[in-house]
Amino acid sequence: MKLYAVGIGPGDAEYLAPRAREVILDCDCIVGYSGYMKLMGELASGKELIATGMTGENERCKTAIQEALSGKKVCVVSSGDAGIYGMATLLYELAEAHPSLEVEVVPGITAAISAAAILGSPLANDFAVISLSDLLTPWEVIEKRLDLCNMADMAICIYNPSSKKRSDYLMKACQIALRHKPGGTKCGYVRNALRGEDSQALVLTLEELSSAQVDMFTTVIIGNSATRVIGGKLVTARGYRI
Amino acid sequence: MKLYAVGIGPGDAEYLAPRAREVILDCDCIVGYSGYMKLMGELASGKELIATGMTGENERCKTAIQEALSGKKVCVVSSGDAGIYGMATLLYELAEAHPSLEVEVVPGITAAISAAAILGSPLANDFAVISLSDLLTPWEVIEKRLDLCNMADMAICIYNPSSKKRSDYLMKACQIALRHKPGGTKCGYVRNALRGEDSQALVLTLEELSSAQVDMFTTVIIGNSATRVIGGKLVTARGYRI
Repeated sequence: MKLYAVGIGPGDAEYLAPRAREVILDCDCIVGYSGYMKLMGELASGKELIATGMTGENERCKTAIQEALSGKKVCVVSSGDAGIYGMATLLYELAEAHPSLEVEVVPGITAAISAAAILGSPLANDFAVISLSDLLTPWEVIEKRLDLCNMADMAICIYNPSSKKRSDYLMKACQIALRHKPGGTKCGYVRNALRGEDSQALVLTLEELSSAQVDMFTTVIIGNSATRVIGGKLVTARGYRI
Repeated sequence: MKLYAVGIGPGDAEYLAPRAREVILDCDCIVGYSGYMKLMGELASGKELIATGMTGENERCKTAIQEALSGKKVCVVSSGDAGIYGMATLLYELAEAHPSLEVEVVPGITAAISAAAILGSPLANDFAVISLSDLLTPWEVIEKRLDLCNMADMAICIYNPSSKKRSDYLMKACQIALRHKPGGTKCGYVRNALRGEDSQALVLTLEELSSAQVDMFTTVIIGNSATRVIGGKLVTARGYRI
């Protein structure tokens, strides 16, 4: 018996892999965060839809497993990729008690990739992906990771840069970056990357980023010493002699 | 005038985003590494194909720019995502001298994501992507990044783990990881991720990985302290109470 963890990419059908589309169309039941269900569009037509709220991850995955065990074809959808801050791990953990159930992860384009493509090519060399959400990871661990990855002169893609309860986290992350990178370091952020007309992108310095107001639908990229701006785009050099 | 840097994903058409497919079909001329051109299949039919060898990145991008300036619709294809160790940066750098030319990056599923999906969900929390190729980045820089990211207890996805000239680099990378992570740390690697029948995946310990023989078509993932094996899959916990 299979249960699918499907990454739907940024949300626009243009960036949904054919395999993900196929799996969703083949399922009887789609489970997901209510905010993303509207991105499903025509794919959801005629399906049983089970939507839960933003902190309902546990409930969502348990429901998906029960539905799958009852014989339905079920997929749990995550925006971006299901394996990157998505539902895949929780499904594996909860499905462990049901050996008849096999979890398959269907990959999607994660926000780091869609945001980078809009900004230019800021992640062209070694980079780190770090979430500022301290709901599941202690802030001290996040802080240490930010510190060491900036020390390593890596470009850093930041997920969940802000929320109502932690509106100053991006500022804190920038202050940590400023221990190792100059204030003029080139950065950028994208809101609703590749999600139709709502997409907003901005290229700015690390200094400017530290006082920027962003929301939880924003993906932030802090460049490294090889990042510069070419024609308005954020580009990290790889080192080719041109 | 537009020039496209297109990521074709792992190589199987099932994982090629509709937007990438559309752009390729709309182009007159496809430029790429000869080894990947065969992955283009029917998409390449009727197109002018310009293939160059593995170290011909400069030549490849210069040719693409000349063809675009001559009025053709041109795309440069990279496997995975064009912005992650792909051709996007070089195109931006070389196109800087031609203000009439606009480079657009069309995102794709990079090897970190396709390999992670096959292995399970090893990149479910903060992670780093590091290439072991020292053609463009000095080994000391790579070594420092490996050291600091392992110290930060992040999962690490390794690109270009080996080649004929540097067959011991993965072993060196594992030795650096072993400074900070126990030998029993769960790891995995995938050869030809999601590229049809050729795909090979293995879950093993960091100790075992240090003596593994892999080639340049392999993507390696080193877990962190929250990575474990569930039903043969490599799963990094996010911290939900289940």
